[in-house]
Amino acid sequence: MPTPRDADATRARLLQAATAEFAAHGIAGARVDRIAEAARANKAQIYHYFGSKDGLFDAVFGAYAARAAESEYFDAHDLAETAGRVYDDFERHPELTRLTSWYRLERAGSPEAIAEIAAANEAKVAAIAAAQREGVVSDRFPAEVLLGLILVVATSWGSLPPEFAGLETGYTSEERRRFVVDAVARLVA
Amino acid sequence: MPTPRDADATRARLLQAATAEFAAHGIAGARVDRIAEAARANKAQIYHYFGSKDGLFDAVFGAYAARAAESEYFDAHDLAETAGRVYDDFERHPELTRLTSWYRLERAGSPEAIAEIAAANEAKVAAIAAAQREGVVSDRFPAEVLLGLILVVATSWGSLPPEFAGLETGYTSEERRRFVVDAVARLVA
Repeated sequence: MPTPRDADATRARLLQAATAEFAAHGIAGARVDRIAEAARANKAQIYHYFGSKDGLFDAVFGAYAARAAESEYFDAHDLAETAGRVYDDFERHPELTRLTSWYRLERAGSPEAIAEIAAANEAKVAAIAAAQREGVVSDRFPAEVLLGLILVVATSWGSLPPEFAGLETGYTSEERRRFVVDAVARLVA
Repeated sequence: MPTPRDADATRARLLQAATAEFAAHGIAGARVDRIAEAARANKAQIYHYFGSKDGLFDAVFGAYAARAAESEYFDAHDLAETAGRVYDDFERHPELTRLTSWYRLERAGSPEAIAEIAAANEAKVAAIAAAQREGVVSDRFPAEVLLGLILVVATSWGSLPPEFAGLETGYTSEERRRFVVDAVARLVA
C-alpha cells in the first residue's frame, strides 16, 4: 500500500507530466501511457486519482484557473497594473496559452471547471462596477465588457492570430508588458 | 475523366466539407474519410487535389487568411471602423475562431500559409505608421503593436478565456460591435 506521502508525490508527478502532454497535444491527442511513463507511474494510477483523461485535464487546467481567480492580484482601482500581472502570469507559464486554447476547443462547456471561476469573475465585475460608480474607472464600457477587454489585451501576445506572425518580434518582455498596461490604461481612463 | 467543371465542383465540395470537419476536430482529429463522404467524393481525390490532410487544411485556412489580408476593408485612417469590419467577419464566419485556434496549436510555423499574409500585414503596418506621421493616429504604440491590439480586440468575443464564460451574455451583436469600435477608438486616439 502506498503511504499518503507517496500518493501525493505520484499525484504531483502525474499533474506535471500531464501539463506538458496536454499543452503539446491537447486532450484528444494526449496519450495516457506517455503521461504515466513520464511520471514513473502507471495508467491504473491515473484512473484511480483522476477518473479519466478528461478528469486529468480538468485537474491540470483547474489548478491554473483557480490561481487566476485568486483575488491577490486583482485591483479594480488599478486595472492597468492588474493587466500587467495577468501578462506576467502568462509569461511565467507559457503553457497556459496552449492549455487555454485546448480547453476552449475540446472542453468548453464542461461545467466542473467553470463554476467557481465564474463566481470569482462575478466578484471582479462587481468590484469594477463599484470603481465605476466611484468615478475611478470610466463607465464607457459595462463592467463585464471591460473585464473581457482587459483579459484579451493582457494575454494578447500569446493569442495573436497566426497571420500576425513575424510582426511581433524585437520587443523585450518589459516593453510588451508596458504596451499591455498602457492599452488598458486607455480603456479605463 | 472528369471535366474541368466537375473537378472544380468536387474541389469546392471538399473544401466546404473540410471546413466543417477541421473546425470541429482540428487537424489531428479530422478524418479524411468523413470529409470525402460528406463531399460525395473519395479519399484519392483529396490526395490528388490537396496532397495531404495538412495540405487540405492549408487550403481551407489559407482561403480565409487571404481574404482577411484583402485591402478593401483595411483603412488606416479609420482603424476603429476597420476593427468593426474584422468583428463582422468573425460574426459571419463563426468557424473562423476555431480554425484560427487549431492553426495556432497544430500548424503554426508552417511557412506556406503565412508568407503572403505576413507581406499583407507589413503593408498594413506601413499604412498605420504613415497615419501616425500624419497625426491621424496616436503614436503611443508602435504601428505593429497597434495592429496586434486591434486584432485581439476585434476578435475578442470569440477568443475570451473560458473562465469568462457566463459573463458575455445579454448583448446584441450590434452592441458587441460597438464595444469593439469604441475600444479601438480609445487605443488610437
